[in-house]
Amino acid sequence: MCPAQRNDDGQLTARVAALLTAFSPGDDALGISELARRSGIPKSSVHRLVGHLTTEGLLERDGTAIRLGLRLFEIGQLAVRQRGLVDAARPYLADLREATRNTVHLAVLEGTEVVYLDVLGGPDAPALPSRIGGRFPAHATGVGKALLAHSPESTVDAVLAAGLPRVGPRTIIAPGLFRKQLGKIRADGIAYEREESRAGVICVASPLLNHAGSAVAAISITGWSTRMRADRVAPAVRTAALALSRTLLAGPKR
Amino acid sequence: MCPAQRNDDGQLTARVAALLTAFSPGDDALGISELARRSGIPKSSVHRLVGHLTTEGLLERDGTAIRLGLRLFEIGQLAVRQRGLVDAARPYLADLREATRNTVHLAVLEGTEVVYLDVLGGPDAPALPSRIGGRFPAHATGVGKALLAHSPESTVDAVLAAGLPRVGPRTIIAPGLFRKQLGKIRADGIAYEREESRAGVICVASPLLNHAGSAVAAISITGWSTRMRADRVAPAVRTAALALSRTLLAGPKR
Repeated sequence: MCPAQRNDDGQLTARVAALLTAFSPGDDALGISELARRSGIPKSSVHRLVGHLTTEGLLERDGTAIRLGLRLFEIGQLAVRQRGLVDAARPYLADLREATRNTVHLAVLEGTEVVYLDVLGGPDAPALPSRIGGRFPAHATGVGKALLAHSPESTVDAVLAAGLPRVGPRTIIAPGLFRKQLGKIRADGIAYEREESRAGVICVASPLLNHAGSAVAAISITGWSTRMRADRVAPAVRTAALALSRTLLAGPKR
Repeated sequence: MCPAQRNDDGQLTARVAALLTAFSPGDDALGISELARRSGIPKSSVHRLVGHLTTEGLLERDGTAIRLGLRLFEIGQLAVRQRGLVDAARPYLADLREATRNTVHLAVLEGTEVVYLDVLGGPDAPALPSRIGGRFPAHATGVGKALLAHSPESTVDAVLAAGLPRVGPRTIIAPGLFRKQLGKIRADGIAYEREESRAGVICVASPLLNHAGSAVAAISITGWSTRMRADRVAPAVRTAALALSRTLLAGPKR
């Protein structure tokens, strides 16, 4: 091993991560040049690393087309299942969808965004941009507001510091108003979102709390503003969130 | 860069892959020693690499507990969505579940096993070991047989060469019988599985075919052998598979 090996390890790990995260939702397959452009890694190195990653099944190559490997899907499923959340939440989400015929979400907070761990589309709900594994600005969603209302002050500060960009026609963009609403959500255990993420769409969310009263995730029901009565679905979401929180606190069953 | 760097790249990539694939479905978090034991990598190297991978968000560390990072879940979702299959299949799977109240699967072939890309549990179906991102021996499942019947001869040969281990009470373990059944499945476009994966459970599957007539995936309905009439759900599975194949051939919509 060369003396520089330890530092090289860090650089190479960063490069592996850069290649794996170079793909975005709209992509089908990428070529070596595009991977080099996106990752900032020299083409010759990309070529060599893609070869190694293909050998390991983390990437797949079909001629010049490079895709993420199916093995990453398998590993990724373990990553979320280790948290025990998705499996525990599934029956509750299915019940909510069945009872309301609208779309239900399970999401966690990652920085200033939410990541959807599960999305069950309802037959009466509008088509939504949310997808499993996808991200959305936290401040403009019901789940995001439910999570932020039950998060440390420093987390909320970080979101406000990043700004509150307008996402939907009624996104709350004033920091003072946003903080005030978080206080109400904290008191009620329910977050309403009315056209803050998208025109014509409303959402009711509730947090899943740990022993310390912090949110580990949130669930929501989303529907058409003209068709879904927020005040009628709110008790269902809140009840499901409380029951699911209890299940999670009782410990993982796998 | 040292002269040995190119080889080291390969070794390090293999080590990164070994660490990421060291986790199994039953695990919560693992420690450094257990990761070293499973991956065969010296503890000091595991320690260093875990640090790098944590920096990149591919692993997460909470004290001594090491977990797969949520970033891997996001990447993994892209890996399967690049194939366009899951998004295209979702409405068809939801319809099948609603119409039959049993559990529906979407799976692809990986070597001698199937990998489940999607599983929608039905209210009338038994609890099953199949889970999204999980694997199962191909020869003992409906989806696996549907896939093998429409795969190159070399793929079937590989499965037979690996042996046909008994999985359920009626798993087909005779190679001649298995080949004969694949011929019938190829002719019918329908694969029946009767207690071959698990006692009391039956399954009806149908392949999704590409232009060349090869299976790219398969869908199935699984239920109790005493409650689900295989001959009655078969037309629904076959119809959904044909419609979905047509949608996939028409090209990806993302």
